[in-house]
Amino acid sequence: MGLFSRDIKTLNDLFVHTLRDVYYAESQIMRALPDMIEKAGDPGLKRGLKVHLDETKNHVARIEEVFRMHGDEIRGVDCPAIDGLLEEADDVTGEVADTRVMDAALIAAAQAIEHYEITRYGALVAWAKQLGRADCASVLQRTFDEEKATDMKLSQMAESAVNLRAAS
Amino acid sequence: MGLFSRDIKTLNDLFVHTLRDVYYAESQIMRALPDMIEKAGDPGLKRGLKVHLDETKNHVARIEEVFRMHGDEIRGVDCPAIDGLLEEADDVTGEVADTRVMDAALIAAAQAIEHYEITRYGALVAWAKQLGRADCASVLQRTFDEEKATDMKLSQMAESAVNLRAAS
Repeated sequence: MGLFSRDIKTLNDLFVHTLRDVYYAESQIMRALPDMIEKAGDPGLKRGLKVHLDETKNHVARIEEVFRMHGDEIRGVDCPAIDGLLEEADDVTGEVADTRVMDAALIAAAQAIEHYEITRYGALVAWAKQLGRADCASVLQRTFDEEKATDMKLSQMAESAVNLRAAS
Repeated sequence: MGLFSRDIKTLNDLFVHTLRDVYYAESQIMRALPDMIEKAGDPGLKRGLKVHLDETKNHVARIEEVFRMHGDEIRGVDCPAIDGLLEEADDVTGEVADTRVMDAALIAAAQAIEHYEITRYGALVAWAKQLGRADCASVLQRTFDEEKATDMKLSQMAESAVNLRAAS
């Protein structure tokens, strides 16, 4: 999360800090997805990642909405976790020549990113509720549900065609 | 994952590379957990993290077993994702003075780490099966199940006492 963590004194501070963390993370994911879409060989995977890019734009807008509802300045903080996850995704998919193996690697990388987001939104929803901000929790819950659904779709792809083709 | 990703040509290469990645990740988690255990205030959380440290040692041993079963050299590769996740965990919990807020931050950090491992073991199990290595899949599945169980326990703690105390 970086930089401003020394200012975390209350659960409210932790909530705002994590909101900034995930705001940065979503913006970095939005920048990374076009490259992943280009690398994907399976048409279903390519389409799924495109849909997720559109969803990610909505997620960014929703975080901005929560910032406003909560009366906070809209801004991100450095997030070494998402930087590391995206670096790893880029690295492992950077050199794979076989399209089928590339797709398996892309799905695994995308799932690692999804799960990071799921934990962040899960924590934010729980904290918003504890802080008596059911309104913020409700907006964040919608994104949480979408991230879970995307992860399920990726799992289905991983267990079906893509991995079977990669092993052949 | 880093370094050797240029050598990934087949699903088998991807499997071995990811095994090395998670081997490095588990060893870094093993080094980071004692500090998290020390920081935890809630006795249940402290105990849970201690149990997870013991489990992590088993996970490392299991990966070594899979390396041997698969006929590969036991070694890790750099994993920027876990480095980023642990840096973030250390950073956000480094300055929190309030024990109750610290516990909420620790649970969130631990869950982000758990989910990273869940995605890695999930991919490894799927790929081992596709590669016709049900023996390796079975060993990795045991760790996958334990990581899932740990995440469930952390979620229960996050939704109950720890966050309620943090918000008070």
